[in-house]
Amino acid sequence: MTSLKNEPATGFDHPEHQAKLAALYRDFDAAGVTPLWRTREDLMPPHPRPRAVPHLWRWAELYPLAARSAELVPVGRGGERRAIGLGNPGLPGDPYATPTLWAAIQYLAPRESAPEHRHTQSAFRFVLEGEGVWTVVDGDPVAMRRGDLLLTPGWHFHGHRCVSDAPMAWLDGLDIPLVATIDQGFFEFGPDELRDTSTPDRSRSERLWGGPGLVPVSAAGAPRPASPLMAYRWAHTDGALSAQLELDAEGQPGVVEPGHAAVRFTNPTTGGDALTTMRTEMHRLRAGTGTTPARTTASSVWQVFDGGGTVTLDGDSLLLTRGDVFAVPSWCELALHADTSLDLFTFSDAPVVEKLSLLRTVSSG
Amino acid sequence: MTSLKNEPATGFDHPEHQAKLAALYRDFDAAGVTPLWRTREDLMPPHPRPRAVPHLWRWAELYPLAARSAELVPVGRGGERRAIGLGNPGLPGDPYATPTLWAAIQYLAPRESAPEHRHTQSAFRFVLEGEGVWTVVDGDPVAMRRGDLLLTPGWHFHGHRCVSDAPMAWLDGLDIPLVATIDQGFFEFGPDELRDTSTPDRSRSERLWGGPGLVPVSAAGAPRPASPLMAYRWAHTDGALSAQLELDAEGQPGVVEPGHAAVRFTNPTTGGDALTTMRTEMHRLRAGTGTTPARTTASSVWQVFDGGGTVTLDGDSLLLTRGDVFAVPSWCELALHADTSLDLFTFSDAPVVEKLSLLRTVSSG
Amino acid sequence: MTSLKNEPATGFDHPEHQAKLAALYRDFDAAGVTPLWRTREDLMPPHPRPRAVPHLWRWAELYPLAARSAELVPVGRGGERRAIGLGNPGLPGDPYATPTLWAAIQYLAPRESAPEHRHTQSAFRFVLEGEGVWTVVDGDPVAMRRGDLLLTPGWHFHGHRCVSDAPMAWLDGLDIPLVATIDQGFFEFGPDELRDTSTPDRSRSERLWGGPGLVPVSAAGAPRPASPLMAYRWAHTDGALSAQLELDAEGQPGVVEPGHAAVRFTNPTTGGDALTTMRTEMHRLRAGTGTTPARTTASSVWQVFDGGGTVTLDGDSLLLTRGDVFAVPSWCELALHADTSLDLFTFSDAPVVEKLSLLRTVSSG
Amino acid sequence: MTSLKNEPATGFDHPEHQAKLAALYRDFDAAGVTPLWRTREDLMPPHPRPRAVPHLWRWAELYPLAARSAELVPVGRGGERRAIGLGNPGLPGDPYATPTLWAAIQYLAPRESAPEHRHTQSAFRFVLEGEGVWTVVDGDPVAMRRGDLLLTPGWHFHGHRCVSDAPMAWLDGLDIPLVATIDQGFFEFGPDELRDTSTPDRSRSERLWGGPGLVPVSAAGAPRPASPLMAYRWAHTDGALSAQLELDAEGQPGVVEPGHAAVRFTNPTTGGDALTTMRTEMHRLRAGTGTTPARTTASSVWQVFDGGGTVTLDGDSLLLTRGDVFAVPSWCELALHADTSLDLFTFSDAPVVEKLSLLRTVSSG
Repeated sequence: MTSLKNEPATGFDHPEHQAKLAALYRDFDAAGVTPLWRTREDLMPPHPRPRAVPHLWRWAELYPLAARSAELVPVGRGGERRAIGLGNPGLPGDPYATPTLWAAIQYLAPRESAPEHRHTQSAFRFVLEGEGVWTVVDGDPVAMRRGDLLLTPGWHFHGHRCVSDAPMAWLDGLDIPLVATIDQGFFEFGPDELRDTSTPDRSRSERLWGGPGLVPVSAAGAPRPASPLMAYRWAHTDGALSAQLELDAEGQPGVVEPGHAAVRFTNPTTGGDALTTMRTEMHRLRAGTGTTPARTTASSVWQVFDGGGTVTLDGDSLLLTRGDVFAVPSWCELALHADTSLDLFTFSDAPVVEKLSLLRTVSSG
Repeated sequence: MTSLKNEPATGFDHPEHQAKLAALYRDFDAAGVTPLWRTREDLMPPHPRPRAVPHLWRWAELYPLAARSAELVPVGRGGERRAIGLGNPGLPGDPYATPTLWAAIQYLAPRESAPEHRHTQSAFRFVLEGEGVWTVVDGDPVAMRRGDLLLTPGWHFHGHRCVSDAPMAWLDGLDIPLVATIDQGFFEFGPDELRDTSTPDRSRSERLWGGPGLVPVSAAGAPRPASPLMAYRWAHTDGALSAQLELDAEGQPGVVEPGHAAVRFTNPTTGGDALTTMRTEMHRLRAGTGTTPARTTASSVWQVFDGGGTVTLDGDSLLLTRGDVFAVPSWCELALHADTSLDLFTFSDAPVVEKLSLLRTVSSG
Repeated sequence: MTSLKNEPATGFDHPEHQAKLAALYRDFDAAGVTPLWRTREDLMPPHPRPRAVPHLWRWAELYPLAARSAELVPVGRGGERRAIGLGNPGLPGDPYATPTLWAAIQYLAPRESAPEHRHTQSAFRFVLEGEGVWTVVDGDPVAMRRGDLLLTPGWHFHGHRCVSDAPMAWLDGLDIPLVATIDQGFFEFGPDELRDTSTPDRSRSERLWGGPGLVPVSAAGAPRPASPLMAYRWAHTDGALSAQLELDAEGQPGVVEPGHAAVRFTNPTTGGDALTTMRTEMHRLRAGTGTTPARTTASSVWQVFDGGGTVTLDGDSLLLTRGDVFAVPSWCELALHADTSLDLFTFSDAPVVEKLSLLRTVSSG
Repeated sequence: MTSLKNEPATGFDHPEHQAKLAALYRDFDAAGVTPLWRTREDLMPPHPRPRAVPHLWRWAELYPLAARSAELVPVGRGGERRAIGLGNPGLPGDPYATPTLWAAIQYLAPRESAPEHRHTQSAFRFVLEGEGVWTVVDGDPVAMRRGDLLLTPGWHFHGHRCVSDAPMAWLDGLDIPLVATIDQGFFEFGPDELRDTSTPDRSRSERLWGGPGLVPVSAAGAPRPASPLMAYRWAHTDGALSAQLELDAEGQPGVVEPGHAAVRFTNPTTGGDALTTMRTEMHRLRAGTGTTPARTTASSVWQVFDGGGTVTLDGDSLLLTRGDVFAVPSWCELALHADTSLDLFTFSDAPVVEKLSLLRTVSSG
């Protein structure tokens, strides 16, 4: 902030004037005030200049770190979760994937539990592989299996329990950075033991809200800020993506662009995003196809669910393999290419940006 | 409107005054104007006094009439549909079930088709029994089978085709009376032959919109006035109702009241009613239970889908058997009792009344 | 409904077939059902075919009738109001201006009062001339003067009181026909005497809600179905219309079309229409200009507030003079021409039609 | 973030285990990942723990600094504005009043202009004293005078011009910190010279949108994200506040609490906040009264417009004099006391927090 590059040409380079100016700036500092004319370009750049950078984390590196943690650190009250946050190199000091999004790998060892708590931060789990864990959301046990998206909207109590002999790891997404920045965080401990240890195939939430277009009359006509459906199952997601590509092949509309299917996870009481602060979507690219390069002011995180290909971020290409996670800052140009059929899960802060009427997207197509 | 019951006491019963008054009223008539003081109570009653009356039509009577029609009258351009409208006895001259709702039994003989047309009136089909008919909505063939609800939102082209060797009949619901009253009807003929005669198990609409909470990204963020999902399948409806009753038995919330499950068919892009002008719901009563008597200012039509019981409308009870249809005018007290497990489909003008901030409901419970 | 024009060609003109058909239709009648194929075109016309007709009532005829009423009929409990409803000749039997709108001239003699009541019907008063009456809305006395629009949203108690030595007449607009048709009317008597007989220049409603863009924090963030501002004063309306025409003359946007200014009366808590079921607007045409002929599916009523000109309704032209009232049915082509500067007040059912996603408008321009 | 306070008790204090753990943490660092169990309490505190602190800036100190700047630094392209941002001592390095809000004193010398530009950041000016400046918003010159609130919604071109022989200073409010944090800033230079140098008493925006409840029909029915009314004049604000206190004295509702009047500046097309990201309000306390202490999760900035009193922020009291500005972080307890009649302008990030369903407010009353 000491750059003088925005300093207006004063026409007064007389030493006396310079001395007065220096004195003024000292008095500014003493008063804790800052002249816009010396900081304008930093504060108000011509387009977004994120500190966050495009970055990719390899699942092959993350998973062993998580597994080693399980040997050395138990899950318990206080630490609460064996979750390892992915820190964007452009945001040193904070374990934030982007300025608004937290992404972590969470790991439960066989027969382990994580105690209940709740917080105003919204959260979800996306399962890359495995099964045998139930997340208990406000007392409702929700099975977690490969490909499922599980929600924990803000201020819902939740804990996790692994009933399997195998460990399980998954991707956690939260709006921790956003909520921290705007000072909206509340947190409360719940019981150490989960309040319902049953392991139903289908949660109560799904039994009530899981029918397409069907809403319980007892709850109808009352929009909720977040989805009351806590699980979006892989079988449905996979079916919807396949259907879009089949329709594409039949010459029917539905895909985002040729060879590129995508579904958004929504709140059935409003049709809007499933969570108030994060957009969640699953994308599928047909082998051999690519997306049109595009920029958007929302920042996002992506995880490769299946298949292989390439991501190009502001011109730099990276190979993608199963489980890899990458961060896309605001206004970074993103293009995806599929070598095989390529499935990617993504989440972003688009609902925040949209609600503030700030979202911009441009495509090179 | 000739009643003098609202005539203010004039204190002037002098013949001269009476003569002047009579002259004034003659001049009112000549000018085509009407004094409120002679009509106020009719125009503005203390509570709704519908001309429509509670009424029940027996499926056992309706179906044979429809079948006889098929022997005598073909389906074709001009008449358009072999649909027989249920006329409320309180609304003579108009084949209207209530002042806002049209209900009809429609019948297609084996191998018959009904030509395409579109209209601003919203429509749905609810299937009591049978299969083998496809309704083609904007070129998308949608299978019709027992228990399914099929939509035709306003201004969508649609025709029907029976590919079976058996006839098929179903309940049609439209907002014809409402649209007629407020003069909003447009109608346009489409092709005589259906534009797609394929018979897919699943319509394109369902392939795109039939996943719970899943929305195509290509269409996301753009609320539509009516549902883009054209079929609500019985398997899902039945499952949701069963789930509610099971949750009820487990002591969990979800039902409307003990033993009374109900789902509303909604528009996944908004969470609101599937159609702009009609609410559609399916109710299930556990054998031996009844609903709390209640009045609402929405008018409705109900059809017994399965089971037997009793409906009580403003104190008069009627036995219900499969297929029976009954109309419930505004502010008529309704109570249902199930002898066996009882499933009822219902539609009403509640979305209209709600959007105008006029809906009132009172329960005796 | 007995027309056979939609009767499909049966190909069976054999007497036996005709006899069977006649029997079927007799059985339909007995069962109270009606075949769509004999009524389709009446029920579902190609475009709106209102029974209501374009019609104009002369103020010069209406006012004397109202004045004569005042000599012969007191205002009191039961009749409630000395209001004379304008009956559309196309809607015989009902004193309705259009199928959804009631328009009446209301008249209070010097020192007279009309007792308090409330109803679910929405109402407004528009004042052509005079002053000296206060309408008391939920206990808040609201002065009525030439050019003012005064609201009585549904279910607000209201009565009127003339404190002047001169009588006063105004235009009443209500949604009585709509509310009657859909059976939503509730009515309740209030006190015979007005609960507040003060005569403030400015109502409490205006003191709280009358600042442009200013909302009391105590009520902010809570949208209301109807406007909390009960009076829209002529000085503001006139000023806004003048400003639009001045901007037009300066080459700046704002008018509807060249020479045609118009303001809508809105609900400051939502920006939508001031009343839930009726749109209210004031239009001003510069002398010598005309509007582009246009049709809309909303029906409307207009009153000439000032000036003279011509209205053309489906091709028939009528001279307009101050106070004249005319009804425009759905889909009737309307064009206005101003001989002098011409001010017109109008109300319509557009909010109803819009909320049902049925509004269509086409312009010949 | 190096605190171990959340480290779960491992039960393994064996040196070998500690060595493994240290190795794991080194590998975490190398991989750029961070364990939640070591950071959870910092990331997810039990309630908001803002870095920003309650702080007050004295007008008597700010104004001379601004005036000295005018002698030493011209206003021109690049620096753009002679605005001096108030930096919260809890947010060192950034000239931010709160984590989301920028507050600055802006100063124009006699006959000076500031060139046109636009940015996605929303802005307003609130005028403590003086007159003679016009802000030109998208080509529309808007006069600025004591007590007025002037808007510059995002992406509207704007420049300022002083036509007076006296300088003028005012409070600028922007969402610069929020937009910076979430990387949504775009900025574009406009002409160096203002495109309209006229000095009308009333802007075109006010002429079109300044009537209470009156909306141009040409723009009706199209909600805008921000207010189209660019000026909220002191005469209206003052009148509305006075009216609330008078109503309070009459025993009528309207005030926030006894003796405490407040109006919110709103967008007439929606009834919501005038700007998308900032709430703006004016408060008036009757002499001798105080507000109930309350906390809210929105952060805010206040300026004393008139009168004197005390503000108590988390228990610390500060004397208030005309022009003083203070910042209230999230969840800081705020109480105001008026020695004389006390007027305060305030802005906050409440619309952001509300749209994300995160706003919490608790009152000690």
